[in-house]
Amino acid sequence: MIVPDFDPPFQDNFRALLRWRRDIRHFRTDPISESVMTQLFADAAMAPSVGLSEPWRFVRVDDPARRAAVREIFLRENTQALAEQGERVAQYAKLKLEGIDRAPVQIAVFADPDPDQGHGLGRRTMPETLAYSAVMAIHTLWLSARAHGIGLGWVSILDPVEVRQVMDVPEEWNFVGYLCLGYPVKDDPVPELEREGWEHRRPMAEKILRR
Amino acid sequence: MIVPDFDPPFQDNFRALLRWRRDIRHFRTDPISESVMTQLFADAAMAPSVGLSEPWRFVRVDDPARRAAVREIFLRENTQALAEQGERVAQYAKLKLEGIDRAPVQIAVFADPDPDQGHGLGRRTMPETLAYSAVMAIHTLWLSARAHGIGLGWVSILDPVEVRQVMDVPEEWNFVGYLCLGYPVKDDPVPELEREGWEHRRPMAEKILRR
Repeated sequence: MIVPDFDPPFQDNFRALLRWRRDIRHFRTDPISESVMTQLFADAAMAPSVGLSEPWRFVRVDDPARRAAVREIFLRENTQALAEQGERVAQYAKLKLEGIDRAPVQIAVFADPDPDQGHGLGRRTMPETLAYSAVMAIHTLWLSARAHGIGLGWVSILDPVEVRQVMDVPEEWNFVGYLCLGYPVKDDPVPELEREGWEHRRPMAEKILRR
Repeated sequence: MIVPDFDPPFQDNFRALLRWRRDIRHFRTDPISESVMTQLFADAAMAPSVGLSEPWRFVRVDDPARRAAVREIFLRENTQALAEQGERVAQYAKLKLEGIDRAPVQIAVFADPDPDQGHGLGRRTMPETLAYSAVMAIHTLWLSARAHGIGLGWVSILDPVEVRQVMDVPEEWNFVGYLCLGYPVKDDPVPELEREGWEHRRPMAEKILRR
């Protein structure tokens, strides 16, 4: 078994992957092949999970009625968010925050809050590590998608209980996020929220403390 | 601006990175250079965050007394976990679940639960997306570390309130995880919990539903 050598050229390419991963809301409608989806899921399966519990549950949403129901939930919650904006209301109104009407692949992601797998290891004092494991699987899928030229958008402006009901999954499952996937209309290294003037990145040094 | 082409050889190398990323508990004690740490943090800063809020707060823990205090919390909680094991108690007792006594770099990660940055976008119905953003920054750091030959271990067998107190950070900050970093004693593509017979990975197909 040969340990791979991740050399500086790979490190640079990996950095480019991080830099060009975007939250995509503008999708082309051409499909993603099932063989590519299989690859993306195989990559996501390599994500870390607490106690090797692999608590992620991926619900592929193909039913147009369920997609429409999720979009209705989004529209209602986003209208509410808009109403609460105050002085930024006009700027908020211009933002496109989802691509549910067009994305060819859509996935609702849940975490099992009490999986047998893993035998409880590592989550006794921090049960939220189960959801965190699902988040890392999403993030792995996201990076793998970008490495295949595919964009992903994470929709969080949703009522988690209602999405769970729309998906008809076990009541105890914890909704983590709704993902839209498809080929992006354009690629850009700058986040759309930054291009639209909503917010900008800050130096990482501001986020690091010493103790 | 040239859009990078992530070709099949890169996709394969990225897959190898995912495959060889491990949760490390056995560290060598040689230091990680500050220039490498700066690179790892720069990569982590590229992680997605809800509303571009970048709510992650990284506390580098250098003080031996604080490290010892975290280890004490771990030892107490792990003793409690051991006591609750039932028939797997002997197997649990053999597992090494942290490297706090040896890892040259240690980081306590928090999420700000109400950052000004991002102006609240995307988190009204799901405030947990702030912690999820910090989780994706941790996961980015983890992958970047592995790309530099460095191992990371995420310790979650801790009381989150006590860790926050040890770190003397704002009371409202949400503890996400305690990270140990250093060069690993060995590299392996198989998770340590699988090598030790605690748990094994399952086919991804078992985690995917259709709706």
